[in-house]
Amino acid sequence: MGKNLTKRSEDYSKWYNELVIKADMAENSGVRGCMVIKPYGFAIWEKIQAGLDKMFKDTGHQNAYFPLFIPKSYLSKEASHVEGFAKECAVVTHYRLKSAEDGSGLIVDEDAKLEEELIVRPTSETIIWDTYRKWIQSYRDLPLLINQWANVVRWEMRTRLFLRTTEFLWQEGHTAHETEQEAIEESELILNIYADFAENHMAVPVIKGTKTESERFAGAIETYCIEALMQDGKALQAGTSHFLGQNFAKAFDVKFATREGKQEYVWATSWGVSTRLMGALIMTHSDDNGLVLPPKLAPIQVVIVPIYKGLEQLDAISERVNPLVKELQNKGISVKYDKRDTHKPGFKFNEYELKGVPVRIAVGQRDMENGTYELARRDTLEKETVEADGVVAKIEFLLEDIQRNIFEKALNYREEHITEVDGYEEFKRVLEQKGGFISAHWDGTSATEDKIKEETKATIRCIALDAIEEAGSCMVTGKPSSKRVLFAKAY
Amino acid sequence: MGKNLTKRSEDYSKWYNELVIKADMAENSGVRGCMVIKPYGFAIWEKIQAGLDKMFKDTGHQNAYFPLFIPKSYLSKEASHVEGFAKECAVVTHYRLKSAEDGSGLIVDEDAKLEEELIVRPTSETIIWDTYRKWIQSYRDLPLLINQWANVVRWEMRTRLFLRTTEFLWQEGHTAHETEQEAIEESELILNIYADFAENHMAVPVIKGTKTESERFAGAIETYCIEALMQDGKALQAGTSHFLGQNFAKAFDVKFATREGKQEYVWATSWGVSTRLMGALIMTHSDDNGLVLPPKLAPIQVVIVPIYKGLEQLDAISERVNPLVKELQNKGISVKYDKRDTHKPGFKFNEYELKGVPVRIAVGQRDMENGTYELARRDTLEKETVEADGVVAKIEFLLEDIQRNIFEKALNYREEHITEVDGYEEFKRVLEQKGGFISAHWDGTSATEDKIKEETKATIRCIALDAIEEAGSCMVTGKPSSKRVLFAKAY
Repeated sequence: MGKNLTKRSEDYSKWYNELVIKADMAENSGVRGCMVIKPYGFAIWEKIQAGLDKMFKDTGHQNAYFPLFIPKSYLSKEASHVEGFAKECAVVTHYRLKSAEDGSGLIVDEDAKLEEELIVRPTSETIIWDTYRKWIQSYRDLPLLINQWANVVRWEMRTRLFLRTTEFLWQEGHTAHETEQEAIEESELILNIYADFAENHMAVPVIKGTKTESERFAGAIETYCIEALMQDGKALQAGTSHFLGQNFAKAFDVKFATREGKQEYVWATSWGVSTRLMGALIMTHSDDNGLVLPPKLAPIQVVIVPIYKGLEQLDAISERVNPLVKELQNKGISVKYDKRDTHKPGFKFNEYELKGVPVRIAVGQRDMENGTYELARRDTLEKETVEADGVVAKIEFLLEDIQRNIFEKALNYREEHITEVDGYEEFKRVLEQKGGFISAHWDGTSATEDKIKEETKATIRCIALDAIEEAGSCMVTGKPSSKRVLFAKAY
Repeated sequence: MGKNLTKRSEDYSKWYNELVIKADMAENSGVRGCMVIKPYGFAIWEKIQAGLDKMFKDTGHQNAYFPLFIPKSYLSKEASHVEGFAKECAVVTHYRLKSAEDGSGLIVDEDAKLEEELIVRPTSETIIWDTYRKWIQSYRDLPLLINQWANVVRWEMRTRLFLRTTEFLWQEGHTAHETEQEAIEESELILNIYADFAENHMAVPVIKGTKTESERFAGAIETYCIEALMQDGKALQAGTSHFLGQNFAKAFDVKFATREGKQEYVWATSWGVSTRLMGALIMTHSDDNGLVLPPKLAPIQVVIVPIYKGLEQLDAISERVNPLVKELQNKGISVKYDKRDTHKPGFKFNEYELKGVPVRIAVGQRDMENGTYELARRDTLEKETVEADGVVAKIEFLLEDIQRNIFEKALNYREEHITEVDGYEEFKRVLEQKGGFISAHWDGTSATEDKIKEETKATIRCIALDAIEEAGSCMVTGKPSSKRVLFAKAY
């Protein structure tokens, strides 16, 4: 199609990297591991933000904002948290630069050394729970349901646009509750919101589950997750919701007066999704021609390309197209009428295919004579010619149908790529030859999990919430197991 | 009123600090100079963001996101920019912590020293223009109209919530143009958007003008600004829009092929408003009873407080109030029905006054018998009893009238506090005794400006765009001047 895009079958990883750049989603910056999110990519992220933000608010959450910096000592307060997050991070040690005396440029002013180093937040549990101590005195202050949209920094050695970057954008919810039960319900509520959003807005099917101990968030009692499957058979963790027990309340001494007048530690959750979702979105649906976007998140849902010679023909087309543009806009459909005269129709077709615009309308002289439009849908690349009269209804149908179709396509792929295996050799063979999720029995120990990871690079993605109780034996050790878990190689 | 709020006349500064805390807008964090924006304050900021974002998009701007970190060497590339921004800043020097061998906790890992230090962005011109070099080749790539919502860090020695904090939230627009004229028009367009938003959404009257050379943005050819006046007679710069000429294009080598096929440097603007606007909003309207919020930005526009004894009375009130709540919501009015039984009506009245809710409705037994509601407006504290039939129309009227009234009140105050003076002694007297803007002749030199600043702490806030040509002589040096400029002490 003239897009010079590597085919998925040739090199999936290269295809992804090229697509992100060519479709104007994001690019690497001059700062190691930090990306620039370009306007087209950011417009999709804004729609993800708006959709999730509404769901959070509809369930009683409020947004707030906490500092970018975390004093080093805060990180040490929760023992397992520090192990997970205090290592690879950006450390601010000074607060001033000065001009070098030899005229060689700017240097760090050693007189401006901080007494205590500040860490650029890798996640905000510590600074937030340090704040909650002041906000929570009584059960009347609970539940506290707060979310923030923010940038965070984790010093990753190997980075990939959207999937793993040193700085990324995310939302992090941090809630405080009276009871253990209420906090668990909150983590599950959020898990369901994430799954709902992934499936019904992003059209990305996900499996809901819990993490094993070794994959759990540092400081959590239970980590719930949604796991998606990419077209190369690798899994991608798309969101996590953590039940934190009283760990952070104890670390930061956050107690409340109960209804019975006793002092108790608060129960907590935290949960987040990030710009990683953009990677999941791109990899789930796109093809060798470029992006395929779900209509609900597409910045441009419909593009109209006129095919004409000379200004007179263009004017005639515009006279017919302008009212259609207005009618679509009035229905809340985002539409672009691209009448640039600097580019040919074929170039435009390619561009919008590459950018995943769900519906493309072309209008040429034959359409003008026949009172028709040519409609092309991005997901199947099918074209059809429709009467002008019914075009709006047809577009509305197509937008819904594309949303439904790409979800089903992804769901079918996922279902075809969950394989039940019972032996370790079979496991290895399926992993290498087919990929996807492998449903197998496991003895419940980290030792076995580590061994499998070391030998095959597969990890336990989750213990599915809907896993059925089934007596079996671990494929590696033969020890008893009560349910299957889902393995996969993962991003 | 039982709010224990210092009166403005006693100590304006203390009043402000207390109000920000008591009204749940923001508070200081454990990190020096960094604030926590609390949910109620953040809800106002979200409305500011949404309003401005729509105005930017309606004028063709797109959002994007650029890295938090700026390599030290980037800052040195634009000579005057580095003077203004490279000094007091957060410097990241290392990317790893490790556990101290003596078990004393976390320490910086000296093996993880960055080759080049990274600066936490104080503003993003340098990293963005380094990116634009890759994005701009031809006039077809122009104009490039991009905005980002982001956090920035400037290492301030003396901080105050919202007004001056080490980390703050803002938007920064960065645009690139073919011609000087187009870039100047863009800076003016944005200035008008800022003024429109300040006056018509925030109800804060502003004076549009340009900065003198010494108050100009580091790297700008011209800085346009909007200046507001607070109730203590001090000015507050509420937004700036800079015409940057070709300074950053030259520093980062951003050239484009013109329509004539020549290579030329791109013309630029940058512009921003920040969480400082929250300070302007609070200080412009609020009174000794607490916040006064413009209805267009109030998170809760109408609160309904039932006055009752026993559940039976409450149920009867709720039966009448619930349909009213729905009717108001259907009209897009945000309404809260506060039937908490843990707090008395008087407590609630105080709370909503403190939080600046524009319209309060009380419903007691007499209202139930008479078919009435008691309405109180926050701006004037006036109460009136209205028939239930006309209550919705009355509320709609009140919301508009409060928006109009607080703007006019602020405008009257501002107009009364612009004083024309011709002599330097009179200048000093007015500055000390009356405050506000002082309109005076100035000889156009930085030397005189510096002398006035040193002797009186007043600065030239702006040269108003609508200043009339008028022959005069500088109040300090007696040298000729062609127009008056506006002086004030400022935040």
